[in-house]
Amino acid sequence: MTALLLIILGGLCAVAYGIVTINDVMRRDAGTQRMQEIAGAIAEGAQAYLRRQYATIGAVGVVLFALLAWFLGLKVAVGFLIGAVLSGVAGFIGMNVSVRANVRTAQAAAQSLGAGLSVAFKSGAVTGMLVAGLALLGVALYYTYLTRFAGLDPASREVIDALVALGFGASLISIFARLGGGIFTKGADVGGDLVGKVEAGIPEDDPRNPATIADNVGDNVGDCAGMAADLFETYAVTLVATMVLAAIFFSGQTDVGGRNVLETMLLYPMAIGAACIITSIVGTFFVRLGANQSIMGALYKGLIGAGALSIVAIAGLNLVMFGGFSTRFTTAGGDSFTSLSLFLCAVAGLVITALIVVITEYYTGTRYRPVKSIAHASVTGHGTNVIQGLAISLESTALPAIVIVAGIIVTYSLAGLFGIAIAVTAMLALAGVVVALDAFGPVTDNAGGIAEMAGLPKEVRKSTDALDAVGNTTKAVTKGYAIGSAGLGALVLFAAYTSDLNYFIKNASPTQYPFFQGVTVDFSLSNPYVVVGLLLGGLIPYLFSGIAMTAVGRAAGAVVEEVRRQFREKPGIMQGTERPDYGRAVDMLTKAAIKEMVVPSLLPVLSPVVLFFVIQAIAGKGQAFAAVGAMLLGVILTGLYVAISMTSGGGAWDNAKKYIEDGHHGGKGSDAHKAAVTGDTVGDPYKDTAGPAVNPAIKITNIIALLLLAILAHS
Amino acid sequence: MTALLLIILGGLCAVAYGIVTINDVMRRDAGTQRMQEIAGAIAEGAQAYLRRQYATIGAVGVVLFALLAWFLGLKVAVGFLIGAVLSGVAGFIGMNVSVRANVRTAQAAAQSLGAGLSVAFKSGAVTGMLVAGLALLGVALYYTYLTRFAGLDPASREVIDALVALGFGASLISIFARLGGGIFTKGADVGGDLVGKVEAGIPEDDPRNPATIADNVGDNVGDCAGMAADLFETYAVTLVATMVLAAIFFSGQTDVGGRNVLETMLLYPMAIGAACIITSIVGTFFVRLGANQSIMGALYKGLIGAGALSIVAIAGLNLVMFGGFSTRFTTAGGDSFTSLSLFLCAVAGLVITALIVVITEYYTGTRYRPVKSIAHASVTGHGTNVIQGLAISLESTALPAIVIVAGIIVTYSLAGLFGIAIAVTAMLALAGVVVALDAFGPVTDNAGGIAEMAGLPKEVRKSTDALDAVGNTTKAVTKGYAIGSAGLGALVLFAAYTSDLNYFIKNASPTQYPFFQGVTVDFSLSNPYVVVGLLLGGLIPYLFSGIAMTAVGRAAGAVVEEVRRQFREKPGIMQGTERPDYGRAVDMLTKAAIKEMVVPSLLPVLSPVVLFFVIQAIAGKGQAFAAVGAMLLGVILTGLYVAISMTSGGGAWDNAKKYIEDGHHGGKGSDAHKAAVTGDTVGDPYKDTAGPAVNPAIKITNIIALLLLAILAHS
Repeated sequence: MTALLLIILGGLCAVAYGIVTINDVMRRDAGTQRMQEIAGAIAEGAQAYLRRQYATIGAVGVVLFALLAWFLGLKVAVGFLIGAVLSGVAGFIGMNVSVRANVRTAQAAAQSLGAGLSVAFKSGAVTGMLVAGLALLGVALYYTYLTRFAGLDPASREVIDALVALGFGASLISIFARLGGGIFTKGADVGGDLVGKVEAGIPEDDPRNPATIADNVGDNVGDCAGMAADLFETYAVTLVATMVLAAIFFSGQTDVGGRNVLETMLLYPMAIGAACIITSIVGTFFVRLGANQSIMGALYKGLIGAGALSIVAIAGLNLVMFGGFSTRFTTAGGDSFTSLSLFLCAVAGLVITALIVVITEYYTGTRYRPVKSIAHASVTGHGTNVIQGLAISLESTALPAIVIVAGIIVTYSLAGLFGIAIAVTAMLALAGVVVALDAFGPVTDNAGGIAEMAGLPKEVRKSTDALDAVGNTTKAVTKGYAIGSAGLGALVLFAAYTSDLNYFIKNASPTQYPFFQGVTVDFSLSNPYVVVGLLLGGLIPYLFSGIAMTAVGRAAGAVVEEVRRQFREKPGIMQGTERPDYGRAVDMLTKAAIKEMVVPSLLPVLSPVVLFFVIQAIAGKGQAFAAVGAMLLGVILTGLYVAISMTSGGGAWDNAKKYIEDGHHGGKGSDAHKAAVTGDTVGDPYKDTAGPAVNPAIKITNIIALLLLAILAHS
Repeated sequence: MTALLLIILGGLCAVAYGIVTINDVMRRDAGTQRMQEIAGAIAEGAQAYLRRQYATIGAVGVVLFALLAWFLGLKVAVGFLIGAVLSGVAGFIGMNVSVRANVRTAQAAAQSLGAGLSVAFKSGAVTGMLVAGLALLGVALYYTYLTRFAGLDPASREVIDALVALGFGASLISIFARLGGGIFTKGADVGGDLVGKVEAGIPEDDPRNPATIADNVGDNVGDCAGMAADLFETYAVTLVATMVLAAIFFSGQTDVGGRNVLETMLLYPMAIGAACIITSIVGTFFVRLGANQSIMGALYKGLIGAGALSIVAIAGLNLVMFGGFSTRFTTAGGDSFTSLSLFLCAVAGLVITALIVVITEYYTGTRYRPVKSIAHASVTGHGTNVIQGLAISLESTALPAIVIVAGIIVTYSLAGLFGIAIAVTAMLALAGVVVALDAFGPVTDNAGGIAEMAGLPKEVRKSTDALDAVGNTTKAVTKGYAIGSAGLGALVLFAAYTSDLNYFIKNASPTQYPFFQGVTVDFSLSNPYVVVGLLLGGLIPYLFSGIAMTAVGRAAGAVVEEVRRQFREKPGIMQGTERPDYGRAVDMLTKAAIKEMVVPSLLPVLSPVVLFFVIQAIAGKGQAFAAVGAMLLGVILTGLYVAISMTSGGGAWDNAKKYIEDGHHGGKGSDAHKAAVTGDTVGDPYKDTAGPAVNPAIKITNIIALLLLAILAHS
């Protein structure tokens, strides 16, 4: 119980950090009347978005809650509720801080670059710490309730099902926030440009354009709320899946060194999470502008500091929880390893994070070959820019894939499947500080927009531009981390699926899990139903992202209609005498985005269920389980490549434009710049809609399969 | 022996058809002096390309021949030689006919549309029939030699290895022709446009531009020689893999109905090939312009006729070879099925072909939603055109994938793995008439160019334009067929890999296959080395196509340099007093293309070998075999999606431009048209370089794995 209390205390530290930092940020000067007016419009839009989104999620959530309560009992349904509510809270608070920190960042940047950086980063850190803290708290508190107060066996199905449902709750928010948010943000971006710049002839970021505020709202919707929900989900499901594996692998083992093995292994992943929250908080204090005025350097100091401290902290955990590094464990599957191996797996997770960050920066940074090659290709036109961008996007998948593969081999060799799970847990334990880097992006982006619109002096805009440029890189880098961890997390979910399935089959009898009686599953690649599952799983990310990209086009069309209507009905807007109805534009776009996301979001949800029952009808239960299992891997496989190529490619296009704007190949206004703008437009839905939305699609397919097993076990 | 003679006779029929048709085509009027001059330049360029390519292939081939002879014996090396030479001959003759039929098509089109169609289609049919005929002859004749004259047991490893090596020989030509050819054709296209239109200010297809001829050569290089080599390879490796499966599944069985089961099953796939050559030849006579003047309708009549006759012919084969439809067979693996099931599998293969043709036409035809949506998106600019094109390219993978999955389920349910193999065999048996449709494309394309350059009357150009437009569709449709059959063919190769591996392990002893002694392979998805193999296999198509697209950019740069040099050194070119050195430009581009293809072509060749030895060092032989097997499936999985999305997306972009040029959204010269040109440029390397080159990459990875097994078995 002491260990659990300490873990909960770790989670509470993150929340406390959030409260203190929010107060700190809100105390800052919010600037002139004009600045506050603009920021107010963005905050108003953000409110409109969140209201509509949570109303819809609420409706869907109630139905799902009832279904889960009916099929799997109230405890499971409550788990779902906890996951959904906490993820929603993290996004809600994060976004509300973000849309208030933007104007304060602009104002602080008027004093100094360092001050601007400080406000923006602290705002991002609030979101980051709430994500990690609330996800850990949700799992730890509900686990405590179930095992300590409701008196359930930690390895019992009820505990496992309830925790899986908690992950599913997080998934619900994640798919809405990522897909709906992605369609929203790029619909606003593309649609606003079309009607404002092309039709009305007003510049970008002009407050007379009702969609411009939606565009600024969209930045927060995508990179603050969307990323928060995505990583909350990955954090929660990885923690849960690791605990499911622990429950299956170490159930009923005798004590080792006076410690209950099962209990220790269930607590270990949560303890890593708690320890790394503390190191992440300490890491945020390392973020300080050095003498060289390198913003990226300052941010990296925080990340590196948190990572290095985490290694020490996890080593400490091993001493306390395992009594050293030489304690030996054996799983029910027969893997045998020492506590040193587990420690090394955790370190491997941190190394994977570092490598993915470095690789993504290489592919999206303006200093390296990939971005430069796209900028160079822009000289010969729109077509060659896009061709080179696509080439880079395809190529950019190679190194992350090799890092992930190396990580799998190393951690599996060290400690089997559980080793992979621990590595991913450690990788995600840094989510707090990594999300901080990402949520920093929309704040600086907004700050630049506000400085522009409020007509602040040139030096201020120079500072906000510098912050914004770094924001572009950190957004890309965090996306690489998000997809890498989602892919690895999904692998752990897949391992949980196969282990769960084996468990049900092994323990099936006429009274317990009767559905699984006499079922044999052949997961071998030479089973054609495995091939079928792989192929159909592989299809999901393709079809899903194709539909998502089409949806952006339609949502942009809806924006055009709405803006035209406002211009028509309120002629004072263009004269500056009437205020556009920002909330209405945002609400309309939110509606469009949510409507557009129905079909694609059903795809990963229904695919495993439909596949299961179709194959069961054709070839029986065993083949149906095999096909669904293969589908899970198929969706991870192509999902990883689709998502990495889209997010890296999009980031590279974006920065190729920036590189040209910095004065290369003719600079702003040149033909090369026009071509680079085309590439950037193409990259937008790639990196901000389709690519990131693939993450929850991968995870939700896997978690639905786990729930399907639970429901079949109850039938 | 009678059956074998009849099969060989079928192959000879194809060759006879080729000779007769070549004479027929060459007898046609070759038009005016000016036309012949232009056609001569194209033919000269084609010669230069083939010379360089075969010289390089020869050098690589000699090394591979020696290696195979050293490791696996002379019979295997000779098999390799046969495959390479026959594939080369099919491409060589096909291309030589193609570059002579172009001018005759232009001249015939001056008489009537029907006459033009007839010449172009016949020229394509020569290539098509040679592909099917020579591939069948190669396999059948070498099989006859090995089993009837060299006295080897049909199921012996020597026969299997020799046939697999024959497939490898075809692969060698295929990877060169597809990848090198793809880089060549799009390097010429993009580079020629850049230096001609942009720098020199001369129109497209102007004979003063040395790269214009290379562009026309490129059409033949890609869609005639490239497609021929690709489908020759798929045809040969599918036939071989089906026979390998037959040898393993039916070896040592007692006679059924007075027939040797093994012998019958080994001959059955070849017999299907022979029968369908005859039906394909008959089908070509169905191609006749109807009263409605629909060119596409005329071509489809040939395809549908051949398909319908093939069903009858295969039914007849079943009567003769199996004594009816109720004969029952059981494989060594325990699958039991009747000859009716095998017939139905063959029919399923033909149905898959039909469905893929229809689906691809839907995604690339100007009459349907996908192309129209891209054209519509062009109105709002370059960026939205590319976004919608990418969305369509992603979406276009869904239906073909579902058809392939349904095909796997149906044929596996009917007759197990052998059923899948028979379905693919039947699918490929129509290669003759399908390749005819594709090779028709460059002939009409060239005919249009020649009509343009030679200043033929407007009506002639109207006819050639109509033929050319259909050529665009048939090229896209054939690419869909090529990738679908390559994917399914690779699945059969994968089945051959696992069956082969099981065979070696089962029969391993200290004296025979000692390498495989005591090896156990876990192909289960829950084995992390399987996941590793899947991930790395999945990477190959991504990295491969990324490099290929970059290579097009570099090759285009080389073209620009060469054209500039010729303009500089021969000032008479621009005045029309000096003839550009077309051959030099082509030879230079060939060199560039071949240089650029080294790295990407090594990727699928070396990946399985490197993976095997690395994993063997880390985790032992069993895991190494598992990882390599998984890599084969991984490359099929993402390869299928990458290739379909690229070829369909590229075709859709191309026809969206055509749709606008037909007068929609402002027509030629409008802003929408400019955006559509950008999309078309992007689609070019997508559909003509990277996408099609993924086919041989998939197959070669699989065939290398089979060869690796053979070499390990010899060690």
